Amino acid sequence: MRIDVLTLFPEMFEGVFGVSILGKAKEKGIVSLEAVNFRRYAGNKHSTVDDYPYGGGGGMVLKPDPVFAAVEDLQTDPGVRPRVILMCPQGETFTQQKAEELSKEQHLVLICGHYEGYDERIREHLVTDELSIGDYVLTGGEIPAMTVIDSVVRLLPGVLGNETSAVTDSYSTGLLEHPHYTRPPEFRGWSVPDILVSGHHAKIEAWRREQSLLRTLERRPDLLETAELTEKERKWLSSLKKESEQQ
Amino acid sequence: MRIDVLTLFPEMFEGVFGVSILGKAKEKGIVSLEAVNFRRYAGNKHSTVDDYPYGGGGGMVLKPDPVFAAVEDLQTDPGVRPRVILMCPQGETFTQQKAEELSKEQHLVLICGHYEGYDERIREHLVTDELSIGDYVLTGGEIPAMTVIDSVVRLLPGVLGNETSAVTDSYSTGLLEHPHYTRPPEFRGWSVPDILVSGHHAKIEAWRREQSLLRTLERRPDLLETAELTEKERKWLSSLKKESEQQ
Repeated sequence: MRIDVLTLFPEMFEGVFGVSILGKAKEKGIVSLEAVNFRRYAGNKHSTVDDYPYGGGGGMVLKPDPVFAAVEDLQTDPGVRPRVILMCPQGETFTQQKAEELSKEQHLVLICGHYEGYDERIREHLVTDELSIGDYVLTGGEIPAMTVIDSVVRLLPGVLGNETSAVTDSYSTGLLEHPHYTRPPEFRGWSVPDILVSGHHAKIEAWRREQSLLRTLERRPDLLETAELTEKERKWLSSLKKESEQQ
Repeated sequence: MRIDVLTLFPEMFEGVFGVSILGKAKEKGIVSLEAVNFRRYAGNKHSTVDDYPYGGGGGMVLKPDPVFAAVEDLQTDPGVRPRVILMCPQGETFTQQKAEELSKEQHLVLICGHYEGYDERIREHLVTDELSIGDYVLTGGEIPAMTVIDSVVRLLPGVLGNETSAVTDSYSTGLLEHPHYTRPPEFRGWSVPDILVSGHHAKIEAWRREQSLLRTLERRPDLLETAELTEKERKWLSSLKKESEQQ
């Protein structure tokens, strides 16, 4: 897979693209990651990429020309139409389902604004997707682009080793994870639960599932609506809900 | 404000902490930003910070000792209790409201796991908050920590200049932004809407508000429930909703 990010701050990506999973995926040749400064495509002597908004008001607006020119220059293989993704607060909220969808593409181009708005013609005539990573205000699209890239690249075949895929699998239940414990067995007077050192695997599995259900009920009850549950688990959870409502 | 990040990959933060708003806020002395490798606090000759989970299963678990030791070492001012924030998928979903709350603190410590789970005793006895930035799976807490830091730091007094605060203000309406246009007036046959070049300020404001409402209705109708709307706007929106339902 090929991923290009259009940004005015390519140096923000150096650390993130160089280490850990993304760095290893690059090294193995599974993904090509480039942060491209679209100021290069400004086409004017002052390298201006933004300008005042028509109709007045504060803030600056990214001009269409450099962004169109950059995306077109990056499309070197006429047989591959890239997904062109605008990172913006007005976008669709990014989800794991979207990450899976994007991981099947050959070429992604992510466009990051920074303070500025985008000229609407970029939105209407160039981009295929608009994504937001959540309901909070950030300075630019760079950290959101890193978020999308990390979640997509880790889904590519060959990227995750065994040590990590196991952790991943726990998400596929649609529930929050159960508590984890490791050594020491006692730390500052706080012990590991007896059940986990019992050696009784069936009981451990039952305890973990129960803890996972309880944590999801407490913190993210919305996830229970789509999680795969047994009939018995559904009944247990609804009896717990009733109990807590009566208190 | 002081912000420390505990991570096994401090180099991921170099680019992000060095440029743009975060870099400037650091330079101005408004915030101190440090990425601390908690492997330093491992206290064993192999610098091991994780271990196998009690009860078996895949994945590794971060040990409590290095994380407790690091947080305690960072608490240099006995008069300031830091907010200790665990970045994890099981956490409360991060929002702008939470960013505002955190921006009033003196010291934040963000803990980033990477592949591994956290020993439950960290969660129970050390952290004050658990945060998730959204419903997608990432490799580690580093990019989520950057997200939280960026959204918090830009709220600190003196960080944003005029050029950016204006853009920010548009979020305070609780609606998605209206479309922006800048030069050229015609780009590849696509023109700027006539209204924006009319010079008629009252009409431009009305058009922008209408576009903002329409975009919010279309993309994020949930935001309309809490947005500040006039009675007339409410009626207009509900007539639009009815129309689209009848089609």
